[in-house]
Amino acid sequence: MYSHSTKIRVRYSETDQMAFVYYGNYAQYYEVGRVEMLRSLGMSYSSMEKSGVMLPVLELSSKFIKPALYDQEITIKTTVKDKPAMRIHFVYELFNEDGELINVGKTTLVFFDMVKKRPCHPPQDFMERLVSYF
Amino acid sequence: MYSHSTKIRVRYSETDQMAFVYYGNYAQYYEVGRVEMLRSLGMSYSSMEKSGVMLPVLELSSKFIKPALYDQEITIKTTVKDKPAMRIHFVYELFNEDGELINVGKTTLVFFDMVKKRPCHPPQDFMERLVSYF
Amino acid sequence: MYSHSTKIRVRYSETDQMAFVYYGNYAQYYEVGRVEMLRSLGMSYSSMEKSGVMLPVLELSSKFIKPALYDQEITIKTTVKDKPAMRIHFVYELFNEDGELINVGKTTLVFFDMVKKRPCHPPQDFMERLVSYF
Amino acid sequence: MYSHSTKIRVRYSETDQMAFVYYGNYAQYYEVGRVEMLRSLGMSYSSMEKSGVMLPVLELSSKFIKPALYDQEITIKTTVKDKPAMRIHFVYELFNEDGELINVGKTTLVFFDMVKKRPCHPPQDFMERLVSYF
Repeated sequence: MYSHSTKIRVRYSETDQMAFVYYGNYAQYYEVGRVEMLRSLGMSYSSMEKSGVMLPVLELSSKFIKPALYDQEITIKTTVKDKPAMRIHFVYELFNEDGELINVGKTTLVFFDMVKKRPCHPPQDFMERLVSYF
Repeated sequence: MYSHSTKIRVRYSETDQMAFVYYGNYAQYYEVGRVEMLRSLGMSYSSMEKSGVMLPVLELSSKFIKPALYDQEITIKTTVKDKPAMRIHFVYELFNEDGELINVGKTTLVFFDMVKKRPCHPPQDFMERLVSYF
Repeated sequence: MYSHSTKIRVRYSETDQMAFVYYGNYAQYYEVGRVEMLRSLGMSYSSMEKSGVMLPVLELSSKFIKPALYDQEITIKTTVKDKPAMRIHFVYELFNEDGELINVGKTTLVFFDMVKKRPCHPPQDFMERLVSYF
Repeated sequence: MYSHSTKIRVRYSETDQMAFVYYGNYAQYYEVGRVEMLRSLGMSYSSMEKSGVMLPVLELSSKFIKPALYDQEITIKTTVKDKPAMRIHFVYELFNEDGELINVGKTTLVFFDMVKKRPCHPPQDFMERLVSYF
């Protein structure tokens, strides 16, 4: 298993008239979480895509426990619990500045060969960096 | 059970560089689906909120079956299968112009008294309009 | 000169905690306005892009006169005042349900050949449809 | 005059199918720029709003010089050139990782008393912190 934490600050644009972060915007926070998790392993999602492999999302689920509020610094803890195959599962735990768990998310993504237009195995260098954690 | 269908057209802003609708933007489509479902029953979410009851989202899940693409007209079929109590469950089925099911979503929302700051029962006129369908 | 009006309904996601539409979201409304203006002439921006010509935005300006509010139906009046050359100028006037002018926007876009990667003249069928209005 | 620079990293959600940052998303970057500029002076926009003064945007203009791309780290340089009165003018210059100027924005905002519902003078502590720069 591999975990990594990163922080984002809630933007005004991300709030709605309830004065909470709009429920659709957490997907962006999860995206930041997993991209920074990859970067912490020395990998760049941007490079992976340039090399012809993209990672579209197949499934998403979220539990909204407490609202995230404007200008709060939110900690996103991203975890890969299982060794990825053609699919990779991420779990996200979001904490507010008081350390309270405010949101839990899960996503399933698929490695997808942009030339052959079909699912594929993860790039070899990706697996090499990740494999020691499982 | 009560179902209602509405249509939206995919905006350029909603696509990402995969040329698909970004996975976080489906939550907006679900929102349009449930608000228009309420309107089809002669109710306005906006009025409910003005009367002091809001409906924050507690849970969200999505399955991304096929991508939604720029400028497509997407049909959002929104269904309430169970009679709501303090919580209400919506199911969303999204279809592209070829009638293909491209996305399924589910959300759980809670009726919330904005003055007392706690969950509450649905407004009476809301239940009166809905109850005959269950 | 050519004008066309279309309507959008303000989504909850587009509001912010001031309970106004976030100022960055008007750019989406302008996009809807110009795309529907093109459609009213029998043209599709989507097809233009598939044929290899895209229309990136070079300049944007907005005046925020009155706020747009949740669930309002906003009329977007889009006007092309001058015959387009390599650049095309759109003016947007937004009206609320009381017919009040709430926002004025202007954008300059450039016809851009996606293969040659440089500005180009408007597609011929585009100009043929538009030219009689100037 | 007072200037402050901050950085943001372009999110996937902020791109569109041109593979550029969508033109409407720069407004969010400007927002981050001015909020961080205020923070650099020891002020918090969030606190100002809680004290009853908000800062809605009256005017926005943007020049799109070069596209911002996915995963780039963008530097936002925010400048207040003139001593604010009831209105405050911000200028934003955005630079990519090669130090190229890619975007210039301007916004005019108004100090607005949320209780009296009318424009007001800037809070006194705000002016005290800022005044020495003019």
